[in-house]
Amino acid sequence: MANSKFEYVKQFEQPDSLLPNTWIIVRLDGRGFTKFSTKYAFEKPNDKRALDLMNAAARSVMSELPDITIAYGVSDEYSFVFHKSCTLFERRASKLVSTIVSTFTAYYIHHWPTYFVDGPPLSPPLPSFDGRAVCYPSVQNLRDYMSWRQVDCHINNLYNTTFWALINQGGMDGTAAELMLKGTFSADKNEILFKKFGINYNNEPEIFKKGSVIFRNYELVEPGTKKVSEEEAEEMSSAVPEVKSKSQVEKDKKARTKAKIVVEHLDIIRDEFWERRPWLLSGKPGKVPKEP
Amino acid sequence: MANSKFEYVKQFEQPDSLLPNTWIIVRLDGRGFTKFSTKYAFEKPNDKRALDLMNAAARSVMSELPDITIAYGVSDEYSFVFHKSCTLFERRASKLVSTIVSTFTAYYIHHWPTYFVDGPPLSPPLPSFDGRAVCYPSVQNLRDYMSWRQVDCHINNLYNTTFWALINQGGMDGTAAELMLKGTFSADKNEILFKKFGINYNNEPEIFKKGSVIFRNYELVEPGTKKVSEEEAEEMSSAVPEVKSKSQVEKDKKARTKAKIVVEHLDIIRDEFWERRPWLLSGKPGKVPKEP
Amino acid sequence: MANSKFEYVKQFEQPDSLLPNTWIIVRLDGRGFTKFSTKYAFEKPNDKRALDLMNAAARSVMSELPDITIAYGVSDEYSFVFHKSCTLFERRASKLVSTIVSTFTAYYIHHWPTYFVDGPPLSPPLPSFDGRAVCYPSVQNLRDYMSWRQVDCHINNLYNTTFWALINQGGMDGTAAELMLKGTFSADKNEILFKKFGINYNNEPEIFKKGSVIFRNYELVEPGTKKVSEEEAEEMSSAVPEVKSKSQVEKDKKARTKAKIVVEHLDIIRDEFWERRPWLLSGKPGKVPKEP
Amino acid sequence: MANSKFEYVKQFEQPDSLLPNTWIIVRLDGRGFTKFSTKYAFEKPNDKRALDLMNAAARSVMSELPDITIAYGVSDEYSFVFHKSCTLFERRASKLVSTIVSTFTAYYIHHWPTYFVDGPPLSPPLPSFDGRAVCYPSVQNLRDYMSWRQVDCHINNLYNTTFWALINQGGMDGTAAELMLKGTFSADKNEILFKKFGINYNNEPEIFKKGSVIFRNYELVEPGTKKVSEEEAEEMSSAVPEVKSKSQVEKDKKARTKAKIVVEHLDIIRDEFWERRPWLLSGKPGKVPKEP
Repeated sequence: MANSKFEYVKQFEQPDSLLPNTWIIVRLDGRGFTKFSTKYAFEKPNDKRALDLMNAAARSVMSELPDITIAYGVSDEYSFVFHKSCTLFERRASKLVSTIVSTFTAYYIHHWPTYFVDGPPLSPPLPSFDGRAVCYPSVQNLRDYMSWRQVDCHINNLYNTTFWALINQGGMDGTAAELMLKGTFSADKNEILFKKFGINYNNEPEIFKKGSVIFRNYELVEPGTKKVSEEEAEEMSSAVPEVKSKSQVEKDKKARTKAKIVVEHLDIIRDEFWERRPWLLSGKPGKVPKEP
Repeated sequence: MANSKFEYVKQFEQPDSLLPNTWIIVRLDGRGFTKFSTKYAFEKPNDKRALDLMNAAARSVMSELPDITIAYGVSDEYSFVFHKSCTLFERRASKLVSTIVSTFTAYYIHHWPTYFVDGPPLSPPLPSFDGRAVCYPSVQNLRDYMSWRQVDCHINNLYNTTFWALINQGGMDGTAAELMLKGTFSADKNEILFKKFGINYNNEPEIFKKGSVIFRNYELVEPGTKKVSEEEAEEMSSAVPEVKSKSQVEKDKKARTKAKIVVEHLDIIRDEFWERRPWLLSGKPGKVPKEP
Repeated sequence: MANSKFEYVKQFEQPDSLLPNTWIIVRLDGRGFTKFSTKYAFEKPNDKRALDLMNAAARSVMSELPDITIAYGVSDEYSFVFHKSCTLFERRASKLVSTIVSTFTAYYIHHWPTYFVDGPPLSPPLPSFDGRAVCYPSVQNLRDYMSWRQVDCHINNLYNTTFWALINQGGMDGTAAELMLKGTFSADKNEILFKKFGINYNNEPEIFKKGSVIFRNYELVEPGTKKVSEEEAEEMSSAVPEVKSKSQVEKDKKARTKAKIVVEHLDIIRDEFWERRPWLLSGKPGKVPKEP
Repeated sequence: MANSKFEYVKQFEQPDSLLPNTWIIVRLDGRGFTKFSTKYAFEKPNDKRALDLMNAAARSVMSELPDITIAYGVSDEYSFVFHKSCTLFERRASKLVSTIVSTFTAYYIHHWPTYFVDGPPLSPPLPSFDGRAVCYPSVQNLRDYMSWRQVDCHINNLYNTTFWALINQGGMDGTAAELMLKGTFSADKNEILFKKFGINYNNEPEIFKKGSVIFRNYELVEPGTKKVSEEEAEEMSSAVPEVKSKSQVEKDKKARTKAKIVVEHLDIIRDEFWERRPWLLSGKPGKVPKEP
């Protein structure tokens, strides 16, 4: 349609395409969730309903955006990984970030009543999320990012588990509990939990200790059969952008759509996780497992 | 808390603060709304419920983010303007965009049943929005941006009104209607509407013709009493960032929180709109009108 | 010509166009000039030959790039200002910076023997410069930048003049002089200069006290006749990019090429400098003075 | 030293650090060299003096900036490669580009009389260069970039050699020669050269056919002894930035300073070049060859 003398303002939009051949991670975080979790009386240190809701929202995001390879969530944050060969939205940062954050928020609000069945319905101010995109050039950087988040999950959860045991079971107030934990190491916290409260931290639910990882599921590769080292992974996925034919892209997309999206609570730091699921780093869909 | 050898990955986050002393506009657009509007049987060419829902969501965004000066919406898009002196989130683009898009989405989903009372409830795929931030250095650029959107609203609405009249009342199919309108000017469309269907375009609802503008309302300034030219506006708001004392910022924030947020359908192209509301360009709260 | 399968690497080049309608300043600084000035026995606190060489190089840069409006230099740094309407090299930062830095360096090396007549010829490591581009949205910001550099010039020169007087005439060593000046104000330094060494700082050469400003010279406007305020200046030069016709651009370029480029040592902080030379802020060539 | 109310303008400088763990290539190009080469009567299609001068300038750049791993030059352009682990100038794009361009220009002007002994001395407008930085995430991308430039060199040189043979020896004018070469393939040009002028293109000087590659020379690794594949190269150099101790960095720098910088005309497309010089991709200095 015809347009006006004002149209020149379009020129002020600056391009923000992310560097090709790098892994893109979009991480979103809950805004003001300390206050929000108090308002809706989230259980401490972990509210299973809240985590399940986060996972449901993340799963819907992955389902709507087949370009996402894997996602990892803990507490009120979620990281979504696009394969380095991804060309969705011409890799524009604002488009990628806003689409993920918007889709995630939509499902979070939508699914709320399903997960907080007995609680009060949502009322303003509503929960919301902010997000950002970061590029990682190598598989090592990508895996270190994922490891960073899972280590963070572990450190925070061990602390919070001990902190809330001291309060809920030990009758301490927050200040006293904080003081007691200051300067302690993991071993100390494990001991406090076990000796004072009979809690074996290892027996805590995996979802609390490991966070949640979401991916498309294909047939696992036997460990040892084919070691997919990082270097091979680099090789497996081409450094050359846009080499796939359109029909290949479509075929891959269909394969992805067929695959089941699973939510797991696995160790994503060790090699095994990645070696058994070579499709995560290769960007090529695996073999869909036969239904029994 | 202690952290790990993986923490180095934080260094890969690139700064994205927007240039100081420029107007920031965050525009969001509905994703795949053609399909979405069909799914929920939006009325054509305009669905009042859908527009009211957009406005309600935008109003909630403005209410949660007092830093927003003014917002303008049409169809499935909304533009939010931050004053050039704004320092919210250190002006980080991804933070500003994602926060606005997420908050907007949350309210859009949340308010849906209020506006689509008789329709089916939302079901996946849910509506979502993408967004981007653009900087405008001068008041003239800012106003031209706003004018651009309102001219677009007018052009599209005149076209759509005629197009759907030809279909709904004229019994044409889409292809025939499109063909008939090809190459026509505004005058031609006005004539078709009037001669064929007895529609005087001027009598169409303002919300369809002008879109919606949302702002905090203070006492209007008499036109002529004090002409606030663009140049004065530039002068009124300092070029020097962060000159306001913290107490002044707090005071302004409170004043803004008190002001009523209104949704109007006014001409924002002409000077009058801006001259009578000097607080929009100055960034300084006006005088709260006395309740009768 | 035909090309190869390697050509995809061109896609990795990221755009770096600077925001339209903002003033662009490219500042360059000498790299390792403390060491360099020792090697060539620069006079302290100011070496007239070195400053004249800087000015000659900057002048050549302005002569080769008519898009530059004004330049300001002090010590081993120089700032070049492009008008906010400038579209040279599509406003690409790396192109603007590298071209200015390269041209400046070329003339600095080339003119060296003219200014350091009796000294040793240049030998590796050769003098070089680094540079960066910064955008300023308003005339106020631009003028504040220029004022910032000139205030810096004044502060540094007063300090250095006193410091070297204490050493060269007062027989102090560097450490003693530094200690003596620690915590002193301008008035103190003026007094030291006058009482100890009979130096009236006001009588020091303008080039040392004010730095050097370079611009195309047109007929001065009588102060008072036409006050060109900052706001009018904003108005005078359009906010709308690329409004000039190609023939107008060519005409302006010719007018600029005809104008004489002058090197002055004036106060650029006060309004007078800018009011009498309206072409600097308007971006429109003035009236070429008649030759006597 | 104390500063002024104008200092706020520093905040407008935007950060431009390049993504960590990526290869940085700074390429510079001669500005207006068609005109410049005519002015100084460069021989066609290749002027050995001009190429030697380019190489001398590039060599000086590498000598002053030990962080540069390898450089490749052809015609009036030169590409300088920083290892992906490089942290020089905090990887700021403008600083890297301007420093290289300025240093290169300085030596080009300085060495001119050495290489153009009999020609006229340089006079304004002086030769200058512009530059830009591009990031490449993987070794494959980096090598493809280098291959791209060398393929370009070959294609252009074969064309130019034939074109100028048709003119200089064949008596054609430019238009006729251009017409004759239109649509021809490499084989056609080789045949024209051989059949018409008895020129075997393979016997042309390597510097014309392959361009020039500059690097620090260490003991070559026997091909086959240790195959350094791209994947191993990725592994050899850590993905984790800033892992080297300061003393290691200093030690490496010293080792680099000792190594001889050589200018060669080798095939850099094939693996052999990179396999025999593992220090180029690993970023770790090799073994300095014993002097005979």
